[in-house]
Amino acid sequence: MTETIRVQDIGEQGLLQKLQRFCPPDVIGDDAALLSIAAGHSLVVTTDTLIDGVHFSDRTTSPTDAGWRAVAANLSDLASMGAEPIAITVGLSLPGTVPVNWVEQLYQGMSRCLHPFHTPIVGGDVCRSPVISVAITALGQVKPAEAIRRSIAQPGDAILITGYHGASRAGLELLLNPDLHSAIDKTALARLITAHQRPIPRLDVVALLKDLRKQDPDLRIAGMDSSDGLADAIVQICRASGVGARLNRSQIPVPPEFSNWVSNPQAIEWILYGGEDFELVLCLPIEIAETLMAQLGKGAAIVGQIVAGRSVLFQDEDAVTELSLSKGFQHFSAD
Amino acid sequence: MTETIRVQDIGEQGLLQKLQRFCPPDVIGDDAALLSIAAGHSLVVTTDTLIDGVHFSDRTTSPTDAGWRAVAANLSDLASMGAEPIAITVGLSLPGTVPVNWVEQLYQGMSRCLHPFHTPIVGGDVCRSPVISVAITALGQVKPAEAIRRSIAQPGDAILITGYHGASRAGLELLLNPDLHSAIDKTALARLITAHQRPIPRLDVVALLKDLRKQDPDLRIAGMDSSDGLADAIVQICRASGVGARLNRSQIPVPPEFSNWVSNPQAIEWILYGGEDFELVLCLPIEIAETLMAQLGKGAAIVGQIVAGRSVLFQDEDAVTELSLSKGFQHFSAD
Repeated sequence: MTETIRVQDIGEQGLLQKLQRFCPPDVIGDDAALLSIAAGHSLVVTTDTLIDGVHFSDRTTSPTDAGWRAVAANLSDLASMGAEPIAITVGLSLPGTVPVNWVEQLYQGMSRCLHPFHTPIVGGDVCRSPVISVAITALGQVKPAEAIRRSIAQPGDAILITGYHGASRAGLELLLNPDLHSAIDKTALARLITAHQRPIPRLDVVALLKDLRKQDPDLRIAGMDSSDGLADAIVQICRASGVGARLNRSQIPVPPEFSNWVSNPQAIEWILYGGEDFELVLCLPIEIAETLMAQLGKGAAIVGQIVAGRSVLFQDEDAVTELSLSKGFQHFSAD
Repeated sequence: MTETIRVQDIGEQGLLQKLQRFCPPDVIGDDAALLSIAAGHSLVVTTDTLIDGVHFSDRTTSPTDAGWRAVAANLSDLASMGAEPIAITVGLSLPGTVPVNWVEQLYQGMSRCLHPFHTPIVGGDVCRSPVISVAITALGQVKPAEAIRRSIAQPGDAILITGYHGASRAGLELLLNPDLHSAIDKTALARLITAHQRPIPRLDVVALLKDLRKQDPDLRIAGMDSSDGLADAIVQICRASGVGARLNRSQIPVPPEFSNWVSNPQAIEWILYGGEDFELVLCLPIEIAETLMAQLGKGAAIVGQIVAGRSVLFQDEDAVTELSLSKGFQHFSAD
């Protein structure tokens, strides 16, 4: 049996040395990292903190998955703005009793999520804390006129989602309740769990939008990501733009992995309020939305449209309900 | 008596609304902030996390001071690189039981430290955690050829410190031991406590260096800040540059507030290893160092020079000792 080496055994410098192999060698060694921005581009910056026991837990998240998801959430915020990633920084706080191996796996998860986007970790900070927290700041670039914004949706815009919603929430349910596994096909099970553990930020959509802009440089795209749920994203966009929306239940794709084990009301609940699918919710002219949808995968769909007024209405088979933020923002409540 | 309003009473959205008045209105509302960088400049990014009970505590730090110091440490990292500040982001984690007023005071402290440098808070993130932590990322800009680096010191360079060292450590001692106050002049007491609670990042030095570069565009300046202590800064610069240094005790200014109550060995200990003075330690040609020193305040001094070899030697009245990092980096030890 090998002895577990803990952070307190090697100290801050020892840990930083181990973590340096996850960073490009040329940016290490000074108090801050030096990065270039493309000419004509603005800097986009976003920050997000994950706390052990709040945003991830041993029951559902390995350190590799925690690292992946922390990075995915931040890169998704860049995609939200239509920005390309430049780099991330990591501020890691942890008790000295955490195994060094745990930290290395965390960084491995971050690196793997960053890899397809050629985005480096350019430094950070390690400090002692009674609780593990991972504070990530992601830096990106976008031409200011091409930034996706919440506040520029207009009546008549189509509402396009770039993929399935509810899959991450379903994956979480399956991780929490292994009893459910017997009811589900193995491939479906694996897919839903992956959707929860390894969400993929939609930076590919940013690249597609860049191509679309070549034909229409003045293209206006409103939107944000659906990290806090589809309903939340649509309500936030409508509030920021001073408009309303109409969504149609029949146009919203249900993940095919839901068949047989998820009831209809449960599916809608997870799709609208589940969160953490990290898709983009875009409001743009219908013909552009259709072109884009054709380039995206199966879960992409035009799910409704922006209308005048302030109501965000959800048309189900037999009823119309108004969507609100009420379920999305209770991070500080006791539940 | 008014009832204390706690974060859990107003929720994440309520808290964010209160904090928005500390941010410029034009950058709020999207998932990420959009910022411009001056032409020909690189982006400089640095991140730092402060943890309740580790980096600050109720005994010695009000929320206003905690906010000030968190910002000062990050701005000092920008000054370390010779960069001008652009903006900061704040990732705040805290238990729902924290009074809203506490958070507002924290932001007030951050704002006050940022104010003279016209640097906005451009967003951030608030989340629930069992422990308060404040993760700040500071963004700055510098022309790449003008960046101050640890790795470019050369034998013959003068080692210039931009101000007194040891004052912050003395201030901490006074906060922890009120018994000592009777031995000290009131003005001196207030100054040392302020040095600890409200350190000022030396961005003014960055402006002076910019002027000096007008006469000598190729000016090479090595250096870093002394946040982890003067000895640490010199050893780090020497290691990164592959050089040695000779320091002379008699050239290092002792804060005048030390007279009467700090013994000579104690003074040297605090000056070399106290940390958190947030001065700059610069290595540059002697004639430029002298010009710069003349423009700086009383505590600025040329304290030694860079030499060939690897030894960092400290010449006291009667002995020469070798400086090392051993006292600086035990953040994870049990003490």
